[in-house]
Amino acid sequence: MTKIAVLGSGSWGSVLASLLADNGHEVVLYGNNEQVRDEINSQHTNLHYMKNWQLNPNVKATTDLKEAVSGSDVVLFVIPTKAIRVVSKQLQVVLNELEISPLVVAATKGIEPGSKKLISEILTEELYPNDEGKIVAISGPSHAENVAQKDLTAITCASTNYENAQKVQELFCNDYLRLYTSNDLIGVEVGGAVKNVIAIAAGILVGKNYGDNAKAALMTRGLAEVMRLGVSFGAQPWTFSGLSGIGDLIVTCTSVNSRNWRAGKALGEGKALSDILENMGQVVEGATTAKAVHEICQKEGIDMPICEAIYKVLYENGDIDTEIKEMMSREKTTEIRW
Amino acid sequence: MTKIAVLGSGSWGSVLASLLADNGHEVVLYGNNEQVRDEINSQHTNLHYMKNWQLNPNVKATTDLKEAVSGSDVVLFVIPTKAIRVVSKQLQVVLNELEISPLVVAATKGIEPGSKKLISEILTEELYPNDEGKIVAISGPSHAENVAQKDLTAITCASTNYENAQKVQELFCNDYLRLYTSNDLIGVEVGGAVKNVIAIAAGILVGKNYGDNAKAALMTRGLAEVMRLGVSFGAQPWTFSGLSGIGDLIVTCTSVNSRNWRAGKALGEGKALSDILENMGQVVEGATTAKAVHEICQKEGIDMPICEAIYKVLYENGDIDTEIKEMMSREKTTEIRW
Repeated sequence: MTKIAVLGSGSWGSVLASLLADNGHEVVLYGNNEQVRDEINSQHTNLHYMKNWQLNPNVKATTDLKEAVSGSDVVLFVIPTKAIRVVSKQLQVVLNELEISPLVVAATKGIEPGSKKLISEILTEELYPNDEGKIVAISGPSHAENVAQKDLTAITCASTNYENAQKVQELFCNDYLRLYTSNDLIGVEVGGAVKNVIAIAAGILVGKNYGDNAKAALMTRGLAEVMRLGVSFGAQPWTFSGLSGIGDLIVTCTSVNSRNWRAGKALGEGKALSDILENMGQVVEGATTAKAVHEICQKEGIDMPICEAIYKVLYENGDIDTEIKEMMSREKTTEIRW
Repeated sequence: MTKIAVLGSGSWGSVLASLLADNGHEVVLYGNNEQVRDEINSQHTNLHYMKNWQLNPNVKATTDLKEAVSGSDVVLFVIPTKAIRVVSKQLQVVLNELEISPLVVAATKGIEPGSKKLISEILTEELYPNDEGKIVAISGPSHAENVAQKDLTAITCASTNYENAQKVQELFCNDYLRLYTSNDLIGVEVGGAVKNVIAIAAGILVGKNYGDNAKAALMTRGLAEVMRLGVSFGAQPWTFSGLSGIGDLIVTCTSVNSRNWRAGKALGEGKALSDILENMGQVVEGATTAKAVHEICQKEGIDMPICEAIYKVLYENGDIDTEIKEMMSREKTTEIRW
């Protein structure tokens, strides 16, 4: 039995906490909302995020970070990108006080605005500046609702320390979740971080009534861009043909429930961006990522025409039909290059 | 202007012939059905295959192979796998008589039963035994109906002679079809040849009501198997992340019109294989391919658990739930390996 602290009591955090308890581990779930904490501890539900579902009753919830982490062998981050930096700083203080150095698993996907750093880079910087191998990222096509229903799911766990990736594989694997190991931490993270930009583009194609060929071409050529970006960060090109790359992209680009996809569809139908964002009442993550990716492309000279077209449509009043026409008439090129 | 003979007047052959005529080339379409020939020449339709659609009126149809090929710079094969060997033998005689050696483009996908050879291998053997570089394969996510409607489509063209791939790219590219070049002829062909086995598996998951995570995992892990098979044939692993690999797999595994997918769905719903095949009244290509792939796996020792499970379900009375359970409890492994 391993003691695991799960940080973040949203839908994915709750589902992973419950799964790890199903697997026989001792799990404490940390979040900053006292009502959610009490609901989980008394009723084993988290109804704001997950309807018709109960957590494994052995999951204990707390709003006290030190209590959550005390005695833990593993800390799992499932909090939003924007909170990663501040919570990892808090965690660093707590780990020093407790004099422990647990394995850290990142289930959050994203790029930090400003620094353009991946989640594992932030965690390494704040927690283990001399030992990147203590960080393991998990990523892949994993709607929380499917995993909650014990539907079949497969994801990747990656670390520069391969034994640590294998430890995480052992912790999470069961008869409905299967993990595959990878030593390409950067590659596994880049796929999940950039997919939402491509999801906006996939939505646009549906909004404009394009067919199946166009959608498959978009996902595949989108993957080629993500691969080029990843390789420029030091990733291995073949990682993108895996669960954290094309696997996650398939789920994200075909899910009508994705905010990014729905925003894209509305754009394709001719709605104004300001109206779309207002109606959503929620952040469209791909729009933020598109800006970060644009800045990286400009700085590093990486060729990402789909992501750049989305940036133009979102931020420079670009016309969708013009962008598509330009994309189809670009210089003829070879398929796989990085 | 290039003179092009298109062999095969089914839906994909007719659409490609019309597209090449749209691009300003002189196109002769060869088929063995005189009624189809007359219909194309007089009405510019091919209603048995394509409703509500007209070919470019400059496409001339013929049932005479020598007439079709006479003076041609390029011969495009769009005939079924089972006819490739015999038609290429006929073509070889005609090319000798005419004393010409046109570029040969293969749009057919498949593995020859018995020999286990890819289309380009058959064409090389029969036509240019000393010059494989004269063969170019085109492959990718391309429903004929979408291309007929001038919807956006992107595919790959591959040859061991890179200049010949570029020639084909020039011939086909226009504002609704975009080709990317590759020097990995084998890799590009293997993807298209094996996809129908994975499509049966994708249908099974839908028939058994599995969710989006499971479907994305199946396509991705299916791709990993196709990659291993391809690499054993000499392909480059990254080719499978392209249009002829995952691109085509996405279209095939999500298309409710695919016979393979529908056969899988019926299997997943518990129908008997014999009833399914009888009701279809048509060949389920993935079932034939599953047998060929099984024989290759056994002989070469390639690990392809999804394809092998489909083989067991189709030919050895395997139980679907048992196969899925076994797949989820296989030895824990690394993600990308070949």
